[in-house]
Order: sequence, then structure tokens, then C-alpha cells
Amino acid sequence: MRQAGRYLPQYRKIREKHDIVTIYKNPELCSEVTVQPVELLGVDAAIMFADIVLPLEGMGVRFQIKEGVGPVIEEPIRMLRGAQVLEDFDAKADAAFMLEAIELTKKRLDDRVPLIGFCGGPFTLASYLIEGGPARDFIYTKKLMYSDSRTWELLMDKLATAMTNYLQAQIQAGVDAIQLFDSWIGFLSPQDYRRYVLSYSQRIFKKLEGLGVPRIHFATGASNLLKEMKLAGGDVFSVDWTIPIDVAWQRLGYDVGIQGNLDPAVLLADIDLIKSESADILKRVRGHRGHVFNLGHGMLPQTLPENAVELVKFVHGFNRESS
Amino acid sequence: MRQAGRYLPQYRKIREKHDIVTIYKNPELCSEVTVQPVELLGVDAAIMFADIVLPLEGMGVRFQIKEGVGPVIEEPIRMLRGAQVLEDFDAKADAAFMLEAIELTKKRLDDRVPLIGFCGGPFTLASYLIEGGPARDFIYTKKLMYSDSRTWELLMDKLATAMTNYLQAQIQAGVDAIQLFDSWIGFLSPQDYRRYVLSYSQRIFKKLEGLGVPRIHFATGASNLLKEMKLAGGDVFSVDWTIPIDVAWQRLGYDVGIQGNLDPAVLLADIDLIKSESADILKRVRGHRGHVFNLGHGMLPQTLPENAVELVKFVHGFNRESS
Repeated sequence: MRQAGRYLPQYRKIREKHDIVTIYKNPELCSEVTVQPVELLGVDAAIMFADIVLPLEGMGVRFQIKEGVGPVIEEPIRMLRGAQVLEDFDAKADAAFMLEAIELTKKRLDDRVPLIGFCGGPFTLASYLIEGGPARDFIYTKKLMYSDSRTWELLMDKLATAMTNYLQAQIQAGVDAIQLFDSWIGFLSPQDYRRYVLSYSQRIFKKLEGLGVPRIHFATGASNLLKEMKLAGGDVFSVDWTIPIDVAWQRLGYDVGIQGNLDPAVLLADIDLIKSESADILKRVRGHRGHVFNLGHGMLPQTLPENAVELVKFVHGFNRESS
Repeated sequence: MRQAGRYLPQYRKIREKHDIVTIYKNPELCSEVTVQPVELLGVDAAIMFADIVLPLEGMGVRFQIKEGVGPVIEEPIRMLRGAQVLEDFDAKADAAFMLEAIELTKKRLDDRVPLIGFCGGPFTLASYLIEGGPARDFIYTKKLMYSDSRTWELLMDKLATAMTNYLQAQIQAGVDAIQLFDSWIGFLSPQDYRRYVLSYSQRIFKKLEGLGVPRIHFATGASNLLKEMKLAGGDVFSVDWTIPIDVAWQRLGYDVGIQGNLDPAVLLADIDLIKSESADILKRVRGHRGHVFNLGHGMLPQTLPENAVELVKFVHGFNRESS
């Protein structure tokens, strides 16, 4: 879960010299940053360092990743023409640096832990393209979604095709699992998710079925969309802290895995609370198959790395004790 | 629901000359702005124009309401001392202007529609005081809540006492219903809400019981907290669009009322979609007693007033047809 990041002094040191785009375009730097949390925190998986807007460049979208803001799109898409001019994405040509970074990272990791590849979900990417950056109310996105079905469908169709290609290429390059970050779907009603989003995410997950690579479906604030997310697809579902994990499993059904659930803010508290909150999750899980202990969202920049180290140790110890 | 606002040209005209604080401190202007939506849109209730930080001034907190940002607190509270120096709030002395505005508004409305008074919920106000303004991740709030129980409890205790006094005074001044806006509780896990917030909101609602004034409990993104919100209290619960209204009623129980549910962004679409989305809500409600048709959150500034007028007409007509 966004494991490399500002909370790590070793990462900040690299970021002093290079911006995010420079890092993810340089396979050497990218793989270095990707393995940092494995080496420094002792976590059980690595997740490729990248940004969800990365593949948009190959589609002809110009953007900047601004400090403290996030991605800012130069020309937001608000009309059909904007969706029409989006180019086809071919990961082998457009994201060769990332595929190379994956290969390099796999070598560095030397099978110690699995490597997770990812991309943005179609709704979340569409919202960046339409709003022009991170949004609060998704006003332009929803207005377009409700009022201009031709543009919406073309945009979502192109994004779904591009993300399928991107994830397939990441799998070929060697990632052991993939994650679709559809971070903002929680701002939609279940009815709107079904009507405007579900089929596109479903298409992506369908195309990645049976490849022996677990598919993780991620969102935040979406505990009321769990049934819909399951319909869209995935083998493992990410839940945030707004729903107890046992309730989430009841809603999803026990044939899928769950990751997440710990509020990243808990890591800002003292170690006793970190342990008791984590123990609460582990007790609710009762050793159920398919549980991946994780935070419900990205690590906060204010997190002390030693707290994360303690958390990892505690979870490892807890599992040993109870198994 | 935040009915007076930037989407109304008549409101913008007043705002060109006066800032928000000037308007709510001037009973004449305040009541004028409060009745605008009743006269312009034909809605069935008026809600006092104010800001949830209003009573903080009487507690000795210095703040500004900044355009496009919201309230900015001069000295955020991060330690015990900050909570200790908060002064007692006495609405009759500290918010006399608001009580006068209520009386004036009651006269202006002349019993055409009921008048709703409101205040911020204790968690939401605490988060403003701790973060220093509107937040995204509630990092400082959660850190304090998890790690410094003495400061947290004192702060929540003082806010609960102050808000009880403020709402009691509003009821005495003549409001017909009150609303507690605990807008940000949806960022808490159900366990954290129970542990750190519930008892304070409960105290407020208990003190306002049996006064013949319906108590509305408002939050957004909190569909997973409905059971906890009901425990805290209220006669009517506000739900946003992330949960179908019939499902919300199942979770809350049929002995309480529900308001809300329509995504304010729907009002940005064309009238056919506005009607079909509203009809969907009304059909799910099936004329159940205690339903208050409303948006799930505030009117967006981009809303065309004529769309709101059409919505009000449609809902009135629908109810007539089906009754």
C-alpha cells in the first residue's frame, strides 16, 4: 500500500534529487525505491513505484505531478473531442521503462517477496482527466457522466482498453499480482456505479482471469459498494477502516480475499494502540484464508518508520502464535 | 440543506457587499438570506443561515472564514492547554445576534414553513479546532484522539456543553427543528466512533429530548455508521447517496425519519435525469412516514436555480399523485 513514500528518509533523500516522474521513468531508481519498504520495514510484498496517471502520457495526455497537489492535467476533457483524440496505449512502447523496472525489481527481490503491479481504475482515471486533477465533489465528472453518455462511454472504453493492455504487459514482465486502484468510486451511489462504471472494470478483470496472477480491487470509502465491486471482479478486495473486516467479509462472501482495514492514522499513535487495533482486526479475521494484513489506504507522510516496523513484527508474531 | 448559497444570484448579490460573518451577525441580512430559498425555490422549510464555527467565537477561538477554503482557526488546538482555555459558551450573550435573527425570520416566514436551527457536531468542530481548518485525512485529530485522551475528552466535553446550550437557545428563540451537523464522522471506523464520539453527541440529543422539536442527525459518507448514529440520538437521520434509502431505513429501523439521499450533482444534469433519480428515491420510500425529501449534502455552487425549482415541483407533484 503506497509503501514507498515520504515517511521514509531513504525515499526522501532520492526525492530531493529527482521528481516522481524521473524516478518511475528510470528503472534503476524505480526498482530501488520499490524495494525500500521490503528492506526497511520487512513487509511481505513489494508494490511497483509509479503513479496512476503514468499510462496517460502514452495516450497523449499532458500532465504534471505537483508537490502537495497530485497530478494536474493540462487540458481537462469535458467534450467528445477530448475523448476522441486520446491515443491507443501500447505498454511495450509507451511504458517500456516500467516493464524494464519490473524485470529489474524481480531480480533485486530474488523471490524473497512477491511483486505487485498496478494501474488506476477507469472511473478514477476518468475523474482526473475530466476534473483536471484530484477533486472533492467530482462535479465535472458527474455532470459529464450524467449528461453526455457518448463522451463518457468513449472515455471509459478507451481507459479500460488501455489499462487492460498495461496490466497484461506488467504480468508478462513478471509481476506476481496486480491491483486496480479505483480510489474514488466511493463517491458514487451504488446505482450510478452499476450504470456508469461496473462494465468497464469488469472487462479489465475478465481479461486478466486465469493468468495465475491474483487480482486486487482497491477503493476507499466504498464499503457500500462491496457487492458491486465483487460483480466487477477481483480475487482480493481492499477495504478501508469504515467497516469492520468481518462485516466486509459477510458482504463480499467468503470465496474472495480481503486486504486492508487498518486506519493509517493508527500508525501515528503509540505502539500499544497500534497493537491493540491490529489485534482487533486479526481476531475478527480468525485466520480466515485469503486475508492480507494491510492499511486501508496509503501510509501517511507523518508516520514514523519504526512504528511501521513494529506493526509488521507484531502481525508476523500474531500469525505465528495463532497458527 | 445549505439552501442559501452561491448558486442563487440573489444571494451572490448580498455576498458581493458582505462577507459570511457580517451576514450572520446582522439579523436583518441573516433572515433575508435564510428565507431566499423558500421564496425562490418553493422548498418546504428554511434553515438558518450561519456557519458551524459561529459559536466558537464565544468560546474564545479566533478564526476567519476564507473564500474557497472555509474556516481557518488562528491557533489550532494540539495540547491540553488549548482545550483548557476554551471559554464557556452562553448563547444569550455570545450569539444574541443569531437568536434575534431567528425571531425575525420566524416573523418573515409567518408560519408558511418551519424553520430549522443547527450547530456543528462535536467531532466535526473538534476536527476544525485541531486541524486548524477543513481537513482531508484528519491526521492531527486522530493522532490527538488516539494518544491524548485528557485533551480529547476535555475538548469534546466543552464542545458538547456549548452546543447543547446553543441549540437550547435556538429552540427558545423559536426554531421548529434542530440539526446537528457532524459532517466528518464518516472518516471514523464504527469502533472509533463508539469509543471517542458517541457519548458526546448522545448527551446533546438527550438534553433536547421531549421539547417537541424534531432533532436531525446529519453526516456524510457515514452509511456504515447508521447504527451508531442512531445510538447517539436523533429523530431524523440524514443519509447521502452512497446507500439506497430503503437499505438505510432497514439499517436504522422504521421508528425514525430519514432525509437526504439525492446526490447534489444530479441537479447539474438535465431535468429528465433529475426527475428519474428523484422518482427512484420516492419509489423506494413508498410513502413511508418520516421521509423528508432532500439532497444528501449541500447544493453545489454550479447548480442552476431553475433545476432546483423543477425538482421541488416534481417532488410536490409526485407526493400528490401517490397520496
